Amino acid sequence: MTLIVQKYGGTSVGTIEKIGKVADKVCAHVKNGEQVVVAVSAMSGETNRLIALAEEMSEQPHPRELDVLVSTGEQVTIALLTMALHDRGCDAKSYTGSQIRMLTDSAHGKARIREIQCDAIHKDLEHGRVVVVAGFQGVDEHGNITTLGRGGSDTTAVAMAAALKADECQIYTDVDGVYTTDPRIEPKARKLDKITFEEMLEMASLGSKVLQIRSVEFAGKYNVPLRVLSSFQEGEGTLISLEDENVEQATIAGIAFAKDEAQLTIAGVPDRPGVASLILGPITEANIEIDMIVQNIGADGSTDFTFTVHRNDFPKALSLLEHTSAELGAKQVIGDDQIVKVSLVGVGMRSHAGIANTMFQTLAREGINIRMISTSEIKISVVIDQKYLELAVRSLHEAFGLDVDGKIQK
Amino acid sequence: MTLIVQKYGGTSVGTIEKIGKVADKVCAHVKNGEQVVVAVSAMSGETNRLIALAEEMSEQPHPRELDVLVSTGEQVTIALLTMALHDRGCDAKSYTGSQIRMLTDSAHGKARIREIQCDAIHKDLEHGRVVVVAGFQGVDEHGNITTLGRGGSDTTAVAMAAALKADECQIYTDVDGVYTTDPRIEPKARKLDKITFEEMLEMASLGSKVLQIRSVEFAGKYNVPLRVLSSFQEGEGTLISLEDENVEQATIAGIAFAKDEAQLTIAGVPDRPGVASLILGPITEANIEIDMIVQNIGADGSTDFTFTVHRNDFPKALSLLEHTSAELGAKQVIGDDQIVKVSLVGVGMRSHAGIANTMFQTLAREGINIRMISTSEIKISVVIDQKYLELAVRSLHEAFGLDVDGKIQK
Repeated sequence: MTLIVQKYGGTSVGTIEKIGKVADKVCAHVKNGEQVVVAVSAMSGETNRLIALAEEMSEQPHPRELDVLVSTGEQVTIALLTMALHDRGCDAKSYTGSQIRMLTDSAHGKARIREIQCDAIHKDLEHGRVVVVAGFQGVDEHGNITTLGRGGSDTTAVAMAAALKADECQIYTDVDGVYTTDPRIEPKARKLDKITFEEMLEMASLGSKVLQIRSVEFAGKYNVPLRVLSSFQEGEGTLISLEDENVEQATIAGIAFAKDEAQLTIAGVPDRPGVASLILGPITEANIEIDMIVQNIGADGSTDFTFTVHRNDFPKALSLLEHTSAELGAKQVIGDDQIVKVSLVGVGMRSHAGIANTMFQTLAREGINIRMISTSEIKISVVIDQKYLELAVRSLHEAFGLDVDGKIQK
Repeated sequence: MTLIVQKYGGTSVGTIEKIGKVADKVCAHVKNGEQVVVAVSAMSGETNRLIALAEEMSEQPHPRELDVLVSTGEQVTIALLTMALHDRGCDAKSYTGSQIRMLTDSAHGKARIREIQCDAIHKDLEHGRVVVVAGFQGVDEHGNITTLGRGGSDTTAVAMAAALKADECQIYTDVDGVYTTDPRIEPKARKLDKITFEEMLEMASLGSKVLQIRSVEFAGKYNVPLRVLSSFQEGEGTLISLEDENVEQATIAGIAFAKDEAQLTIAGVPDRPGVASLILGPITEANIEIDMIVQNIGADGSTDFTFTVHRNDFPKALSLLEHTSAELGAKQVIGDDQIVKVSLVGVGMRSHAGIANTMFQTLAREGINIRMISTSEIKISVVIDQKYLELAVRSLHEAFGLDVDGKIQK
């Protein structure tokens, strides 16, 4: 028997009417002979309402109690959806994170799942019952309510699918799948039928915010086939799974970009062991997340060191770096917060030479200067001036034939 | 060390500001060297909002899921109050019904408490922590969330006080204590400093809706001193406890009344064994609750049988009774839904003759006809025409000296 785990986000369960439609969808799967586990988020706006209450109560809400508070959002949804399923003649049972029990560590607000107890759920499924699970929440070993952080409902669904060895985990959202790039930038962007976990990870972390990155990692780790599809339109969505045999024919899955980046360079640093940690230490200690890092060895025994951070962290990072520069006797600090990162992503890159060259040629042809390059096994990222973002994405989308149906070989 | 359990109802925690004031009150008790457990209701309006959601979702919301839904109301309050306590430098920890664990039977919506596990709470109290408990909710042996029914937060508080062997259970509400009668009817009504459990039970069940009757039963059974006091005014409230040694001096604690009654009489019933159950059987089978029952043996081998029901049930009860009357060959069925019940309550009645006579004389002097009389150990109830309610209450209040400070002996 096929077992699927479905996840419906806040907009999919945003009103009583929409919850009714979710119930219809779930029932259709049950009538189709499938076993169904559903993970749901809070009704859209509810989590924000609860957080606003907490902030009205306290300037720094106690983390344990904040989790007690916000976890009620999903609890409301599981109850309402389960009622709706009963009304449709579909036997169902709701579970909070504590009831499952979804055991996590004790890091309130960003807890990590340790273990899921599935005995009761298996029994429900065997009895033909739909299991409705509160996303986003768990319980630590002392029985305290925890939450997995925003978007954690995706993680809940994937973790349930992994623990139950489900055939597929379906993430229902307000987009109908994963696209070759953002359709708001390139209207010719094409929905992908398939993408690998690794590609999806790079796409997600680079700014294509369809899925929580942790949930993709989780799915990849436990090899849970993950499908992204729309709550509101019919369609097959995009299947995220292990590399398939045809992957050699494909090169580029898509083009991701990150708009809120800023670049910092410390130039003419005396090149000696440990210099990287001297430069980055103060930045990470200030809780600033560093994205790309590039270092060139100079000819004169000095080195240039460049990295990117989120644009919000730019002023602080710049002042820290100037301090470091004086200490190290570096020549210069240069910063720019009007830059973006554009990345080609595709597992086929591994076995296909010339991708980078095609990328650089395409950008050169459009007169776009590359300020920084970073590569990995399945990705090439470049930093360019912000004003070239759309031009770069569109010309690369065309150069790699992404608007043609099916990936093509370059 | 003194251990108190406090309960704050929905209006006492109705806004963020009011929750802040509750936190102030609790902190004052802690600074006074007391150990405090607090049971709270949902913020006023919240339970109704959740029930409205359920009713919008489903015509007959699934009982288990309704409990999952409405129990979120108290969960929100415990989190907010605990945050507020932390902000005031008062260490505190919240507990849902499942976390305590407040074990109940599985009767969703009207569960009964079976057992409370207090180990964790004792440990918290020893560490000087305030324990904040979600009222109204529990968990059954299978881990399902249950609720105790509306007003169940009082029961939660009393049950916690009994289990923890607390020195006092304080019920904070929007009135400042228990009165000799309803001050809206008799402005001279006086707040009682003390009342016994038995008297309070009679007062509560007769319509003085200060406390949930189940919580008074519970408090009496486990001998938990119960104090009713106002969240909004300073004052000592009313202490409800076992009979004290001075009780012999008191006769009447107060005057209760029930406005929504209706009276039914089946007259001239052949008097034979089993006739009462033939008359009342169909009424109780129709789920109509019967209040007073009076039967007189007639001289001619027939009997008159009178009882009262809630006014809403009057038409149905009347039609059932007419059917029974025809079957039994009774003479007549008489009904009246414009009647009220007025009761004198007081443990002192047991040892004082003449109370009934004073009552009947007082009513006679005012020209009030008594339609029905029923007595118990600590109560005398009469049924009278509705139009005489205020007159009866006021003249009895005066006749028994209830507006004088301190109970007096008649």
